[in-house]
Amino acid sequence: MLDSDGTLSLRDLPRPTTGGECLIRVVAAGICGTDLELLRGYAGFSGVPGHEFVGVVEEAAEEDAHWIGCRVAGEITVGCGTCAGCRGAGRGHCDVRTVVGIRGRDGAFAEYLSLPSTNLHALPASVDDETAVFVEPVAAACRVVEQVRIDAGVRAAVVGAGRLGLLVAQVLREQGADVMVVVRSEASRSNAVTLGFETGDVDGAPRSHARTFDVTVDATGDPRGFAVAHALVRPRGTLVVKSTFHGETRLALSPLVVDEITVIGSRCGPFDRAIDLLGRGRIDVKPLIAGAYPLEEFAEAFERATAGRKVILRPSAAPQSRGAAT
Amino acid sequence: MLDSDGTLSLRDLPRPTTGGECLIRVVAAGICGTDLELLRGYAGFSGVPGHEFVGVVEEAAEEDAHWIGCRVAGEITVGCGTCAGCRGAGRGHCDVRTVVGIRGRDGAFAEYLSLPSTNLHALPASVDDETAVFVEPVAAACRVVEQVRIDAGVRAAVVGAGRLGLLVAQVLREQGADVMVVVRSEASRSNAVTLGFETGDVDGAPRSHARTFDVTVDATGDPRGFAVAHALVRPRGTLVVKSTFHGETRLALSPLVVDEITVIGSRCGPFDRAIDLLGRGRIDVKPLIAGAYPLEEFAEAFERATAGRKVILRPSAAPQSRGAAT
Repeated sequence: MLDSDGTLSLRDLPRPTTGGECLIRVVAAGICGTDLELLRGYAGFSGVPGHEFVGVVEEAAEEDAHWIGCRVAGEITVGCGTCAGCRGAGRGHCDVRTVVGIRGRDGAFAEYLSLPSTNLHALPASVDDETAVFVEPVAAACRVVEQVRIDAGVRAAVVGAGRLGLLVAQVLREQGADVMVVVRSEASRSNAVTLGFETGDVDGAPRSHARTFDVTVDATGDPRGFAVAHALVRPRGTLVVKSTFHGETRLALSPLVVDEITVIGSRCGPFDRAIDLLGRGRIDVKPLIAGAYPLEEFAEAFERATAGRKVILRPSAAPQSRGAAT
Repeated sequence: MLDSDGTLSLRDLPRPTTGGECLIRVVAAGICGTDLELLRGYAGFSGVPGHEFVGVVEEAAEEDAHWIGCRVAGEITVGCGTCAGCRGAGRGHCDVRTVVGIRGRDGAFAEYLSLPSTNLHALPASVDDETAVFVEPVAAACRVVEQVRIDAGVRAAVVGAGRLGLLVAQVLREQGADVMVVVRSEASRSNAVTLGFETGDVDGAPRSHARTFDVTVDATGDPRGFAVAHALVRPRGTLVVKSTFHGETRLALSPLVVDEITVIGSRCGPFDRAIDLLGRGRIDVKPLIAGAYPLEEFAEAFERATAGRKVILRPSAAPQSRGAAT
C-alpha cells in the first residue's frame, strides 16, 4: 500500500469488491520503473501499486464464468467507453479512466485485484509465470512498432538498458531494425551484450554517433534521456519517448524544428502481440529477472528493483491453474 | 548588416561575388519573426539578414543564362549535395548547409544577393511583388500539410495569429480542416477575423477547448506557445512546432507520453505549391502587410515589424522585369 506521503507498507485489506468485474488472485507481479516513480510522487497515486502481473481468475459474473480458473495477464487501463477520449483515441485515453496500480484503481502488489473481463488475456502454457509478468512491458515495447514504421535495416538506438529498454530493443530487432543500445553503466551493458546487442555509452555515443539513427527511443526513465536520444537521431528522424517521470525537463525546442524531428509519446501496447512474441520465444526475458520475493519482503524487493533487473513479487503460492485453452 | 554584438546598421558593401551562382537584384524582402530572433542571438548569425524576397536575376553562369531577367523567389537553404544529411534527409538538412540571411550566407536586406539557380523559382505575373515576399513563409506553412495528413473536417488549432500563424491557418483551411486561431491580443484577433477564422484567446482556450483538437500548431515564436498547443491537442493528436526562438523551455514530458502525442518540428516547405496557391488567390496575404520601406529606413521598419503585420523592405526601385514564362 502506497500512502499519499510516499511511504510503502504491508496492510491487511479486505478482498476487493468486484462490482461485476473478475476477481483475480495474483500469482506474480513485477516491479516497474513507473512504480519507483510513483513512490517519488509521479501521477499522485496512493493505494496498492503494481500493474505487471499474472493471476488466476477466481470469481466472475455469470456471463464471464468461462474465465474462472484461467491464468491471465490484464490490460491495465479501464475506460468508460462513452466519453470523448474513448470515442476518439480509444479506451486507453478515456477522460475518466482508471489504471491498475497507477490511477484510481488498486494494483497487483496484493493477493487479489479486480478487472473487467474485457481487459483479460488468457495465457498459453508456453508462457510461464515469470515470463508472463513481462506481458505488459513487452506490449508497451510493441507499441513503438505500431507507431513507427520499422523497415528491415532501419538504424535504431535505444537509450537506456533497463528492463523496458532491452524489451524495446528486442522488439525493434525482431522487426528487422539494426539496433544499438546506449548504456549508462557496465552492469547494464552486460545485459545488453548478453542479449546480443551492439552497445554505446551515454557519454560517448552522442558524439561518436551524433545524428546517425533513423529512430531513437528514450527508455531511460530519466530527464536526461531525451537529450541523448535527440543527439543521436538524424534530421527528419523519429524520437520515441517511453520515459515517464515526475517533474520537468529543460529543452531547446528550436533544434527539433530546424531538424524537423518527430517526437512520439508512447505508452501501452497490444497484449496479443506481446503474448505471441513471448510464447514463441522471440523475446528473451530471463536475463532481465533479478529474483522473486514474497509480498512480505516488499521492502527488500523494492530496494533491489532500483538496480536494473526485474524484481518479481509473489503474493500467493504458485497455483494449480488449468491454463488457457489455447 | 547584423553584427555579432546584435546591432543592425546600413553599410556600403561590395556586390556579392557569385562563384557561379546567380546574382539577384532584390526588389522586395519581408522581415520575418526569425529575423527579429536573430537580433536576439538566435542561430548566432552575423552578416546581412533577410530570407523572404523577390528579385530579378541580373547575372548568371552561361548554362543558367536563361534565368537572366527572370523575376524569382528563392529557396533559402544551400546544401553540398554529398554529405550524409543531403543523402538522407535532403539538401535542406545538409550538415554544412548555408541558409540565406540565417547561416553563413548573406541575405536579402541588401541590393543584391547570390543563390544557385537550383534554388530559384520563376514567379508568374499573377503573383505581384508584395505577394511574392510571402512565397517563402507560405511554403513553410505548406510544409505542415506535407508532414501531417489533413482530411476534410479535421479540427485544427493554430496558436499565434502572427503572419506565419495566419498563413498556416489558411493552408490548413484550404486542405479542408476546420480551423480555430488562438490569439493573444485584440489586434491579432482582428486579422484572424478579417480572414474569416473562428478565434479563441490564449488564456481562455486552453480551458474551454482543452484536449479537443486533432492537430495543433505552435506558430507563436514564443516559448509559451508550446504549452498552449499542448493543452489544446487531443490524446493521440499531433502538435506541430513552427516556432524558432533563442533559449530553452521547461516542459513536463510525461504528459506527452501518457497522451501519446506526436510532436513534429516543421521548417521550410515546397515553393511550387506556395506559388501555385498564391497565384490562384487561395491564400490572402494582403491583410498581413503593414507597409513597405526603403532600405535606408530599416530601423523604423524593424520597429514596426514587431507589431504583427508584415513589413517589407524595398532595396531597389521596382524593376522592368520580363516576368516568368508561365
